[in-house]
Amino acid sequence: MRIAIDAFGSDNAPFPEVEGAILAIKEDICEKVILVGKEDELSKELEKYYFDKDRIEIVHASEVIFMHDAPASIVKKKKDSSLVKAIQICTEGKADGMISAGNTGAVMAASLFGFKRIKNVLRPAIAATFPTQGNPEIILDVGANVDCSPDNLVQFAELGNLYSKFIFKNENPKVALLNIGEETTKGNELYKTVHQRLLESKIVNFVGNIEGKDLLRGIVDVVVCDGFVGNVMLKTVEGAAFSIFSIMKDQIKKDWIAKIGALLSFPVYAYLKKRLDHTEYGGALLVGLNGIAVVAHGRSNGKAIKNAVRLAAKMAESGFVEHAKEYYDNKI
Amino acid sequence: MRIAIDAFGSDNAPFPEVEGAILAIKEDICEKVILVGKEDELSKELEKYYFDKDRIEIVHASEVIFMHDAPASIVKKKKDSSLVKAIQICTEGKADGMISAGNTGAVMAASLFGFKRIKNVLRPAIAATFPTQGNPEIILDVGANVDCSPDNLVQFAELGNLYSKFIFKNENPKVALLNIGEETTKGNELYKTVHQRLLESKIVNFVGNIEGKDLLRGIVDVVVCDGFVGNVMLKTVEGAAFSIFSIMKDQIKKDWIAKIGALLSFPVYAYLKKRLDHTEYGGALLVGLNGIAVVAHGRSNGKAIKNAVRLAAKMAESGFVEHAKEYYDNKI
Repeated sequence: MRIAIDAFGSDNAPFPEVEGAILAIKEDICEKVILVGKEDELSKELEKYYFDKDRIEIVHASEVIFMHDAPASIVKKKKDSSLVKAIQICTEGKADGMISAGNTGAVMAASLFGFKRIKNVLRPAIAATFPTQGNPEIILDVGANVDCSPDNLVQFAELGNLYSKFIFKNENPKVALLNIGEETTKGNELYKTVHQRLLESKIVNFVGNIEGKDLLRGIVDVVVCDGFVGNVMLKTVEGAAFSIFSIMKDQIKKDWIAKIGALLSFPVYAYLKKRLDHTEYGGALLVGLNGIAVVAHGRSNGKAIKNAVRLAAKMAESGFVEHAKEYYDNKI
Repeated sequence: MRIAIDAFGSDNAPFPEVEGAILAIKEDICEKVILVGKEDELSKELEKYYFDKDRIEIVHASEVIFMHDAPASIVKKKKDSSLVKAIQICTEGKADGMISAGNTGAVMAASLFGFKRIKNVLRPAIAATFPTQGNPEIILDVGANVDCSPDNLVQFAELGNLYSKFIFKNENPKVALLNIGEETTKGNELYKTVHQRLLESKIVNFVGNIEGKDLLRGIVDVVVCDGFVGNVMLKTVEGAAFSIFSIMKDQIKKDWIAKIGALLSFPVYAYLKKRLDHTEYGGALLVGLNGIAVVAHGRSNGKAIKNAVRLAAKMAESGFVEHAKEYYDNKI
């Protein structure tokens, strides 16, 4: 597999991107990595590493997309940006998938323009993988579509179902709808309608509503929600974990016995940190597109970029996109 | 102050309710508690305690509301329920406020019927108090209104503002809108409209959007959202904390050195537990009603009930309802 990396996406670009590329090659995650961005900077950065030169290629792109760039205008105004070019490399058949740690809205806009939607898919979604007490959970949409129709959410359920089947090898994924109660009658108009539609679905193994309190228990495989609720929820979990650790840290500092205790319990904290670490999960996949685009966290380090490359390579190998195309071609 | 307790609301009713009543009297939180429910059961339970008999009264109510009772039909079908009667006692002037640990939807429906809305308030909201790294935060709505208009959310901001002023004595509360990004242009149609409306508000000190990741930092006083998002978010925080502790516990069990460490760090865990403990906060207040109704957690213990009584008494003393009435009378 050949994966293109938008090398100027992350907050500390291009360092994590270059390190991630090196790690991906060394760990044989893919055959080839194409780093897209300012050639001089990338060459200079690559000089720091010892690696197989045949397996990392640089493709020059003169422009960089910033957080304040309006996603809608990027494709027209920044044609020579590392993001737009990384996608172009894929659509020209020179790479099998791409990753970016840049502005999610921009990645979605550029991907829609470059890859295009799969025929009959109304709107692509961002599917995040969530660490839980049990198996990882796919949650979608976590931010691409803030105003959704019932049709959108039903499609997210179908796309999440395929994702879980193809990537996590779940034969019959348990698909749940995020809601404010388990009962069928719970939720706002949108969620009540979607609940009924999913109950009637012959494709998706719908197991009912799931509440926020059960999200991290790992009892389902796919959680469906609109992009507004999904994004609020994703960031709330991130914030809750952070705040809990902060309160603990402050207290440990105040008490030397607790400090010794914390040192002895260190493996527990390390394990927990690893379990909740976003860098382990390789970012979120844009599903519903005619190609493979993975969005990594803006604060990604080399390991996170490497894991994003792994996810993109896994997706490309799995045939997920081809299967989704076939599915939606036959459906309507 | 005289507070009525729906003594058959909680999961373990009437034990926590009776214990809470006793604690409230012993700690002089209010002058009198009126326990509403089956007289024989309550008398029998009260016999276990030694207390000033003049300060706890029982008012008989023969019926109990269950989780499966449809909120809308309660007022007609269960007129002699402990919930409906506790509210009636208030509207007849025999108590200054009431609390219930029962089904939130039922409490809202019965309160709307009994207390009525404050004139010009479109919809009452449930305002929860959130423990944070800093000062407690009021978040509303957390479940009463799952489909909201911009007018609803603007009123929630005003009601939250009053709540923070009257109960937490914040002179100029910082009011934020829950959203998926800090920028003015972020959010779905509803939230973008509300953001603009709040920017123009002359009453509320609107400090902009707040993201899920910053909710527990305690950097604002009031967070506004619709009841669907608020409820998902509230339960997500609860679940995240629970899952983090579960993962830690499982790991600690596996490693005897970590076990000793955890024992030494015990005060830290105890502090954290207390900080995140819902029983400390006395439940959520229904705001926008012509009366005082507090909803406690279904899993409340005696302490949680006592703290709910404290919140109801504080509200009654503060003149919050009268002030809100005056405010909305003059406004339109």
